[in-house]
Amino acid sequence: MSKKVPYRTYLSEEQMPKYWYNLRADMKEQHEPYINPGTMKPVTFEDLLPVFCEELVRQEMNTTDRYIDIPGEVLDFYRTYRPSPLIRAYNLEKELNTPAKIYYKFEGNNTSGSHKLNSAVAQVYYAKKQGITSLTTETGAGQWGTALSMAAAYFNMPLTVFMVKVSAEQKPYRKAIIETFGAKVVKSPSDTTEIGKVILGSDPNSGGSLGCAISEAVEQAVKTPNCRYVLGSVLDQVLLHQAIIGSEAKIAMDMLGEYPDVVIGCIGGGSNFGGIISEYMADRLNGKACPRFIAVEPASCPSLTRGKYAYDFCDTGKITPLAKMYTLGSGFKPSPIHAGGLRYHGMSPIVSKLYHDGYIDEVRAVGQKSVFEAARLFSKAETILPAPESSHAIKAAIDEAIKCRESGESKTILFNLTGTGYFDMAAYMKFNDGDMEDYIPSDEELSEGFESLKEIPLNR
Amino acid sequence: MSKKVPYRTYLSEEQMPKYWYNLRADMKEQHEPYINPGTMKPVTFEDLLPVFCEELVRQEMNTTDRYIDIPGEVLDFYRTYRPSPLIRAYNLEKELNTPAKIYYKFEGNNTSGSHKLNSAVAQVYYAKKQGITSLTTETGAGQWGTALSMAAAYFNMPLTVFMVKVSAEQKPYRKAIIETFGAKVVKSPSDTTEIGKVILGSDPNSGGSLGCAISEAVEQAVKTPNCRYVLGSVLDQVLLHQAIIGSEAKIAMDMLGEYPDVVIGCIGGGSNFGGIISEYMADRLNGKACPRFIAVEPASCPSLTRGKYAYDFCDTGKITPLAKMYTLGSGFKPSPIHAGGLRYHGMSPIVSKLYHDGYIDEVRAVGQKSVFEAARLFSKAETILPAPESSHAIKAAIDEAIKCRESGESKTILFNLTGTGYFDMAAYMKFNDGDMEDYIPSDEELSEGFESLKEIPLNR
Repeated sequence: MSKKVPYRTYLSEEQMPKYWYNLRADMKEQHEPYINPGTMKPVTFEDLLPVFCEELVRQEMNTTDRYIDIPGEVLDFYRTYRPSPLIRAYNLEKELNTPAKIYYKFEGNNTSGSHKLNSAVAQVYYAKKQGITSLTTETGAGQWGTALSMAAAYFNMPLTVFMVKVSAEQKPYRKAIIETFGAKVVKSPSDTTEIGKVILGSDPNSGGSLGCAISEAVEQAVKTPNCRYVLGSVLDQVLLHQAIIGSEAKIAMDMLGEYPDVVIGCIGGGSNFGGIISEYMADRLNGKACPRFIAVEPASCPSLTRGKYAYDFCDTGKITPLAKMYTLGSGFKPSPIHAGGLRYHGMSPIVSKLYHDGYIDEVRAVGQKSVFEAARLFSKAETILPAPESSHAIKAAIDEAIKCRESGESKTILFNLTGTGYFDMAAYMKFNDGDMEDYIPSDEELSEGFESLKEIPLNR
Repeated sequence: MSKKVPYRTYLSEEQMPKYWYNLRADMKEQHEPYINPGTMKPVTFEDLLPVFCEELVRQEMNTTDRYIDIPGEVLDFYRTYRPSPLIRAYNLEKELNTPAKIYYKFEGNNTSGSHKLNSAVAQVYYAKKQGITSLTTETGAGQWGTALSMAAAYFNMPLTVFMVKVSAEQKPYRKAIIETFGAKVVKSPSDTTEIGKVILGSDPNSGGSLGCAISEAVEQAVKTPNCRYVLGSVLDQVLLHQAIIGSEAKIAMDMLGEYPDVVIGCIGGGSNFGGIISEYMADRLNGKACPRFIAVEPASCPSLTRGKYAYDFCDTGKITPLAKMYTLGSGFKPSPIHAGGLRYHGMSPIVSKLYHDGYIDEVRAVGQKSVFEAARLFSKAETILPAPESSHAIKAAIDEAIKCRESGESKTILFNLTGTGYFDMAAYMKFNDGDMEDYIPSDEELSEGFESLKEIPLNR
């Protein structure tokens, strides 16, 4: 009889990857280039230098090196909270009475409460190394802002966080933790930027959006001497850093003699999904194995299931480069009914390309009530309170495990538990009180966002 | 050159202790017996059966068995969040420029956010096994209530939590997480118990206290058929369960070839301190080694440094047995200026006895402003946001490390980081805004609490 797999598997420090795996090196085709909206020509290395620091521009454009060394100082930071455990969900399996074997990579056991820290530390490190003296960013639900404030505190880097106004007001404690780590929080839209002023001019009561906060953060970075902008998802560089999730997961699974039949991740901008699939997607691209990939998005912000594959701005203010991606249009406004993150109008160009080319088998759009039900079941069995975002992946994992119960198959399921829900208690209270609603945008509502896509010449 | 110690050391599942170490088996003298306030005679096994479930009464009275087996189902629960890491604080050492080696056991990486879960699961398990059909408890800052609600959810055990009213109102999200795990939260004092009614009768605006919440929880347990009361600290059984902290820490330190010169813990009711010192205190009691033990309490609730060693009630309503302990008197009301837990009037009888007999070398009472300053320094270096309670231990560890810098000594310091501060953001906001105050009760204020001790015949 085979030895029982432990509940929690931690890699030793020596076993932790010392590289980021660059998925693009194995892709048969790269995603379409970013386009400079001023010239309508592909963005050049030089075009990006005023926005991102040099090493990150290099990483953004690197489609050839399969492995990129993680700098020693970044590894030192990783070691303060990594390796993250790979957990066998014995209790959840028992609760579901399923023959499936469920594993999850738990990325929430750090103070930022999510996987976002993996890229935050890299981005702050490279900025520091280049002599950059301040950074700007945006945050929605607040996980990225927290992660970046932690990295900025560690490297003594001044940071301004444009926080979506409605989020800052609904989550004062998220704002407080970012400030505890020394960052400055500005509610977006704000009157500190030209774009913020324009948006406030047309709607003084605007609660803001992620796209608008990105515009403000980019504007301030470009206007401030020796300042750069950093982004927590979507970009190729972010997926590169997040690949550590999949690399660690694969090393741990290999140790246990396990290989997933299904790999599941929630998806908003695409960074954690790109992370968990990384080395398993490599196996598929290289014909070594064919695990099934499932991405799970909120029905209220369905960029993959109902969006267009088109060129779009990454922000609302239309100052970023254009990216070819699945998008609801930069003018799409997610419903305030939707709790938690995963409310970005677009999608990582890498993930978009993989989906478009058939390498991602399925995308599910799920309603938030069913997501919170999955979260409740999971938390009681596994003793972890998941973030609403992460619970989208839980929902799909549970559904797959139930299918196994019905079919009698003993599949191996791996999902990414991106974070914890400690700063989402207002949403949990709503759910506990039976006040949570589902929201599915009508075709008409979506068509408004799509209008903005038609203004972009490349989409005609 | 010796091999570098990793940042984080995790025991494997096989290395995790399968026993609780019972410190009392090594104590030269036991603490004075609990006294039944009705008969004024030592409490018997039968006296306690209406309050606690049988196996826990047995553990409460077991002063002879050095090791007590952890039941398999409790081990299964432990494996969902343990082992907790032993962390080498390389970044804090660097920040302090100290030759000291600082280690901490991190007990906060679970959803309850603290070490309290270690005893919660044991207490719920034994109740379930005995066929008990509901439980009651109290919670102050909320860590214990959260931990117990998690264990109760896991074992499907109905639970009522009497939550100190001022705490429930200041921390709605703490209340929410307890409710998310399915427990019923009653603000204390409440009109659901006789004691609550009496307290509300004399002060309708009472914000409550831990001692009052204990009274209500015990009353409801005794009045409800097949219900029992569970307590998160103070009792011998709780220290027994928490000994796993010290056992794991010692196994990990031994693996690294390290032995602490100093062991530090914060102290309120005494459970985490009793936990971290456990096997190191055994070495000292058995003459094998002589590490220095430092307990750190809040200056606002100084039961060890300014309390009396006397018999006292464990609660405000005076319905529990009398225990000989360091106490400020069951009538002592901690100042609302004090943030966080560690606001109990008494102290674990085991810890009290060890301190009285000279086995605890030093107790420090520290002001909360210095505690939050230590927390800020720690969080930036170590990327963990500590609970205010835990930060008392951090403060002392930092002070010890600074002494080492001054003396040039390379001492090995071990402290217990009991929990995380995610539900303490209101206190952090106060600190960030410069609005935090220190509070040191005057001798006059303390004398009020001491008055109640004189009413107890045993203290005359």
